[in-house]
Amino acid sequence: MHSKSKIAVTMGDPAGVGPEICLDLLADRSIAENATPIVFGNRSVLAHCAEVTGKAMSAPTVSRKDLTNTDEPAILDLGKIESDAFTPGTINEATGTATYAYIEAAIDAALNGAVDAVTTAPANKEALHLAGITQPGQTEIFAERTNSPSFCMLQYSDAITCSFVTVHVGYAEVPELLSTERILEVIHLTRAALQGIHQRDPELVVCGLNPHAGENGLFGNREEETLIVPAIEQARADGAQITGPLPPDTAFLESRRAETDAFICMYHDQGHIPLKALAFDRAVNCTLGIPFPRTSVDHGTALDIAWQGKANPRSLKEAVRLAVSLTE
Amino acid sequence: MHSKSKIAVTMGDPAGVGPEICLDLLADRSIAENATPIVFGNRSVLAHCAEVTGKAMSAPTVSRKDLTNTDEPAILDLGKIESDAFTPGTINEATGTATYAYIEAAIDAALNGAVDAVTTAPANKEALHLAGITQPGQTEIFAERTNSPSFCMLQYSDAITCSFVTVHVGYAEVPELLSTERILEVIHLTRAALQGIHQRDPELVVCGLNPHAGENGLFGNREEETLIVPAIEQARADGAQITGPLPPDTAFLESRRAETDAFICMYHDQGHIPLKALAFDRAVNCTLGIPFPRTSVDHGTALDIAWQGKANPRSLKEAVRLAVSLTE
Repeated sequence: MHSKSKIAVTMGDPAGVGPEICLDLLADRSIAENATPIVFGNRSVLAHCAEVTGKAMSAPTVSRKDLTNTDEPAILDLGKIESDAFTPGTINEATGTATYAYIEAAIDAALNGAVDAVTTAPANKEALHLAGITQPGQTEIFAERTNSPSFCMLQYSDAITCSFVTVHVGYAEVPELLSTERILEVIHLTRAALQGIHQRDPELVVCGLNPHAGENGLFGNREEETLIVPAIEQARADGAQITGPLPPDTAFLESRRAETDAFICMYHDQGHIPLKALAFDRAVNCTLGIPFPRTSVDHGTALDIAWQGKANPRSLKEAVRLAVSLTE
Repeated sequence: MHSKSKIAVTMGDPAGVGPEICLDLLADRSIAENATPIVFGNRSVLAHCAEVTGKAMSAPTVSRKDLTNTDEPAILDLGKIESDAFTPGTINEATGTATYAYIEAAIDAALNGAVDAVTTAPANKEALHLAGITQPGQTEIFAERTNSPSFCMLQYSDAITCSFVTVHVGYAEVPELLSTERILEVIHLTRAALQGIHQRDPELVVCGLNPHAGENGLFGNREEETLIVPAIEQARADGAQITGPLPPDTAFLESRRAETDAFICMYHDQGHIPLKALAFDRAVNCTLGIPFPRTSVDHGTALDIAWQGKANPRSLKEAVRLAVSLTE
């Protein structure tokens, strides 16, 4: 019998929508048929959230030492915060500290082989910041704790998939962070991940940086010619199927999307604008280049609707499903 | 009897798809019921294109002095190029020179009151550049020739409408071009145009510049707080209905689009990516802040399919229809 993949699912920020979507995940029998999700979080917070939102909570608690033996959805109770120590829907240091502890524990469990992959519920960047966490996002926390210098973010959905040369940096910082080496690295990571998912060589599109991809030098500082084209040429020499650099606005036309497995984007909003416009709450965030599969929801803590039972668990479930497919 | 609006339609670059979509426009009886399109271009080029593509060409030639008296689709033959002086689908100085002459003549006709509005077929920026035209796009040519210092581009469609604080500049130049004064100007121009189209005060969204709109200063140089928010506050004091600054990626969610009349975008691709992904060949480009309505197709010269009869004339027809509604 093929054993089910065990996925550490971090509970995310206790004050956000993480706890309620984790409750939905634990209760989903179709997930449990193919995977064993273990929520890395706080049992009393989950119980309180279940009470407030009217959701069921029947999953048992599992200890660290029993992790390898369990094959049913369960909660690894890490403590770190009491449910009366914060107000749902607000930002504070205590929930940031707890969020980080759940991520840390999940990474260590994956590195130790106690779980096969990690899926993360949303963290709140401001709460992490208040808690003294200096990395700009969860992706960077995973990269640092796993000593992975070459990593990138990929957002996967059936409608559109994008990977990113730069992500959580200010608009103005992007040009100086682009290099042929980095663009080539992201092309290679993306190609390898898509080969794993589709079991064939993927069709990749690389976007330009400037409007109209610079229109042969009319706009911008020829970043397309000096940085992007050399990376594409090197990747093609390595056998990659690549179109580009394309003007960023026509790259995402419906006809182009239909024949493209993944878009390599130069900056956060170049890819996130079409992703959210076309596949909101269906995209799954993956970190490429670390030692184990890591996926994440594509939405934030949604503090305005937290603990109201309104949050859609679809992205978290999709994230667990993609993590499972990446472990197979 | 209400007289029909007379629209000068520039033929665009002779080597691109402009001539063939102008032929389609001239032959469209539903357009002629509500408007009198006059193609400002070259009769022999149109005739040759009709022959090559198998399209009909029955529109008469009209002289400059008879412009005011005609009320049927017609061609104003400006010469400027022979049909054997260029190869369709290629970029050269001669077609750039001709493109510019048609634009110039259309602007002058609108300023003189001989036509009510101008609609432009696609120009090729590289060909204009070879012809010594220094403006980065047609929008800037209109602004300069009409002495309009305060203007902006708006892209209108039923699905999504965006106006732009900056447009045809390199990615790296955008931050230094943003100012509270400029953002406020674009908000005012957009609000006034949408009031004209919808006959009510529009719901506007203003996008941030940085990922997550800076997430309260975590990314970027606080352009949201120092430049964008003050413009929004001033516009609200003037009575505008505004949401923002929103994170650029969540601004264009389907639910948000449904309740938004126009998005104020900080840079070209911030708005053009969702526009092309969601409303390709349906959006109409308008220039706001000049003395007469000017609309344009939202696509380029498409040299790869020029003179093959494959180009879709829908955007040009929509552009003429919007120009008509703006003259009423």
